[in-house]
Amino acid sequence: MSLSKNKIRAITSLSRKKERDEAGLFLAEGGKIVDDLLSTFRCRTLVCTNDFREDHPHAEAEEIILAEKEEIAKASLLQSPPSALAVFEKPRHTIDMGRITKHLTLALDTIQDPGNLGTILRVADWFGIEDIICSTDTADVYNPKVVQATMGAIARVRVHYTDLERFLRENEGIPTYGTFLDGENIYEQQLTPNGIIVMGNEGKGISEGISRLISKRLFIPNYPAERATSESLNVAMATGIVCSEFRRRAL
Amino acid sequence: MSLSKNKIRAITSLSRKKERDEAGLFLAEGGKIVDDLLSTFRCRTLVCTNDFREDHPHAEAEEIILAEKEEIAKASLLQSPPSALAVFEKPRHTIDMGRITKHLTLALDTIQDPGNLGTILRVADWFGIEDIICSTDTADVYNPKVVQATMGAIARVRVHYTDLERFLRENEGIPTYGTFLDGENIYEQQLTPNGIIVMGNEGKGISEGISRLISKRLFIPNYPAERATSESLNVAMATGIVCSEFRRRAL
Repeated sequence: MSLSKNKIRAITSLSRKKERDEAGLFLAEGGKIVDDLLSTFRCRTLVCTNDFREDHPHAEAEEIILAEKEEIAKASLLQSPPSALAVFEKPRHTIDMGRITKHLTLALDTIQDPGNLGTILRVADWFGIEDIICSTDTADVYNPKVVQATMGAIARVRVHYTDLERFLRENEGIPTYGTFLDGENIYEQQLTPNGIIVMGNEGKGISEGISRLISKRLFIPNYPAERATSESLNVAMATGIVCSEFRRRAL
Repeated sequence: MSLSKNKIRAITSLSRKKERDEAGLFLAEGGKIVDDLLSTFRCRTLVCTNDFREDHPHAEAEEIILAEKEEIAKASLLQSPPSALAVFEKPRHTIDMGRITKHLTLALDTIQDPGNLGTILRVADWFGIEDIICSTDTADVYNPKVVQATMGAIARVRVHYTDLERFLRENEGIPTYGTFLDGENIYEQQLTPNGIIVMGNEGKGISEGISRLISKRLFIPNYPAERATSESLNVAMATGIVCSEFRRRAL
């Protein structure tokens, strides 16, 4: 089978959220990430080089199109064409409150930068966080840039979009943490092995409605503590440091 | 004064390392970062809007060129033109071994991604690390993309380029740390308030010659500990988590 113009158009259209939502599909590019995702998501179309195919004889997809890199480039959003790209079906995750109650979960309040979202998934995966609850206006995890930045973590971390404020209000019994510039030194606080850690928007932090639902306000101290700083940590970095601190206590 | 073609060429040429090295200059773009840097570095040329100038009446530069955004766009490397861009003289930092001996220092072994380098400067700034020693093949901190990503931290953290392996060999008395996949659980190790933390290349980690000079091999445990993972943390993220762990002990 070859890469028709229609096929190229169908693939590249997945750079747009509207098309992804309507089709229920998303695009992943790059040999390693496609390989990672093939074992988790149903693959509609796999476009790859002969070499990739030979290295992955068991790769399954409804349709497999072998193509030269120059041809793959036409369907690719990347600057240098990958050895494989694939169209996957978006999974339909449901929120399992049994798991959320017992485990550590991240909640993202309006994270807008795709790179940040991807980095957050990657660090969540490292620290064994299985669920991320996102406000509906958080960046789309199926944006190809996010998929790329997760380095495969999207295959292991379930991402849910919902009315975050309502979700937190309906689950007020679960310990809920957030970072604030006037929060308490995270290193000195008691942290539970389960709970929801809320991370806020890149510019505005955690919104007012949601901050009222947070039971413990944390702060990652800068150093030295007395040094005034007008700066802040990038939200993905802060997420990693907070997760590290929670897991340190649990190990 | 207006923005001549020659001036535009001189400014945009600073996207290239060769030109930056020869001229001893670098470019910063964006109102906030230019503002941050004006108080630290000697400014050769400030190109800004009338509004920026009115908001920063004390800004000093050898030459100040007021221009409309559309005109600034011609000299800008950014997709949307900033309210200010500025050409600064590169500082000539020398390595103060008195400070390195007593404080916590980062060493970067062939960090190649400009975004990672910028993020590392930003998190170093947050945790009060004043010096970063880079191998000569680490990305150039004066690359406009790095300057941008530091969010102003470049004004507070001194970055030095040197033969890193030789530097570490000549200073073997200083505690030297590095992260390795087979290192020891960082949460359980004794960490000194001073020392050099070596972070390695994005793909290859710490090079062999340098790893022999490391006195304590650390590892950031993934969670749960028994879960095998083929993944790794991004180097900037790992840097942030390691710095947080060192500073936690010192606070």
